[in-house]
Amino acid sequence: MKRIKIVIQYVGTNYAGWQVQNNARTIQHEVQDALKKGLNEDIEVFASGRTDAGVHAFGQVAHFDTNTRINAKNLCYVINNFLPEDIRILSSEEVDKNFNARFDVKRKTYEYHFYVNKIAMPLLSKTHMQVRFDFDYEKALQSCKYFLGTHDFKAFCSSGSKVKDTVRTIYNIGIFKEKNNCYGISITGNGFLYNMVRIISGTIIEVGCGKIKLEDVENIINSKIRANAGKTASACGLILKNVEY
Amino acid sequence: MKRIKIVIQYVGTNYAGWQVQNNARTIQHEVQDALKKGLNEDIEVFASGRTDAGVHAFGQVAHFDTNTRINAKNLCYVINNFLPEDIRILSSEEVDKNFNARFDVKRKTYEYHFYVNKIAMPLLSKTHMQVRFDFDYEKALQSCKYFLGTHDFKAFCSSGSKVKDTVRTIYNIGIFKEKNNCYGISITGNGFLYNMVRIISGTIIEVGCGKIKLEDVENIINSKIRANAGKTASACGLILKNVEY
Repeated sequence: MKRIKIVIQYVGTNYAGWQVQNNARTIQHEVQDALKKGLNEDIEVFASGRTDAGVHAFGQVAHFDTNTRINAKNLCYVINNFLPEDIRILSSEEVDKNFNARFDVKRKTYEYHFYVNKIAMPLLSKTHMQVRFDFDYEKALQSCKYFLGTHDFKAFCSSGSKVKDTVRTIYNIGIFKEKNNCYGISITGNGFLYNMVRIISGTIIEVGCGKIKLEDVENIINSKIRANAGKTASACGLILKNVEY
Repeated sequence: MKRIKIVIQYVGTNYAGWQVQNNARTIQHEVQDALKKGLNEDIEVFASGRTDAGVHAFGQVAHFDTNTRINAKNLCYVINNFLPEDIRILSSEEVDKNFNARFDVKRKTYEYHFYVNKIAMPLLSKTHMQVRFDFDYEKALQSCKYFLGTHDFKAFCSSGSKVKDTVRTIYNIGIFKEKNNCYGISITGNGFLYNMVRIISGTIIEVGCGKIKLEDVENIINSKIRANAGKTASACGLILKNVEY
């Protein structure tokens, strides 16, 4: 029995998120199904964390155990044969038996992608949120600094969550400008609450659009009240960029 | 009767190209159908040129005539209500009755997008060609200079074409490097032969992969023989970026 670490890329559009559910297509189900077909074993796959319905991953990480004799580095090619086109294992390697894709995470980086245009852009609609209002990039960029560091992010956690400790650390946050009025918010942290990246992104975008005042952001964080923060930005703009161990 | 110029963005994946065909979904058909529904007129729409099956447009330009009383600038909002999600009119304006979207073109810019990775990347697969081999960016970049200027591009025209004059001028050509091993070849010219951008892109990519020697590119152009040039790069990587008048 050996433990394998895999990096997975997927387009979340057609899935009800990572985790196996009854009556819904999920990424975890597809990967486990491909392992069953490719290795003829019933294998449970453990990811660094769930992603929600519609959320994408550039480099989700997961682990599983297998008795296969196939060389670990070649496993990705075998499994990919049995995966739908919108999911691919980018790499596979043998790791220490104690490695745990969920509990050993040190840093995760998410990107939130959006574009500013009054009319929807078909070429961006699966991977970017549309922002219809004038967007002040400098103002939005300035709002990022308030999120940096260790804070109680209770105001940025969806009410459905049962997590008690809402303190998290953000190591890195910023907005990059791309061509064609596209922007990406990049956030690296030690962990994220339920919908935290999407609520922070929604808040930053509302600062850029003038709906939330720059000078109010610090108070919103300190208030710990979800209703004070911006709207949860839509799932399609969110990408789990990479996971570090 | 007034003449309207529109800018159209579309994801070509699910269409058999621009031009109306029997038994196939086309962009032109969808736009004309939306005009029929929105304006209650039978309107023929004339684009700057056809795009092939699977090719995308960031800013295709077209014109049509209408008797509508709706303000020209607002027409795009009306028509978009009747278009599928993967096609959007980005803008509409009234133009001189002599304006012709096809015959008045001065410059067109195409981009050819690809990424280098041994394993297919689902997040890029609809808009980028996959290149599986090591890619030498500097070499590929150097090969661009041979295409600049006025040449007989017969070697870069698919054999199906009936065009007699195969001389075209390229005003601008280059490769930009993007994150995640992505690249874009940008080509601006006064006009393009059938599959010309895809064959030039295929040739540049083969130079980068070491399949075609840099010093052979000039001879390939001068030979005027299609078989000497690189493969036609796949449609999914091609985007009609904009059209200038």
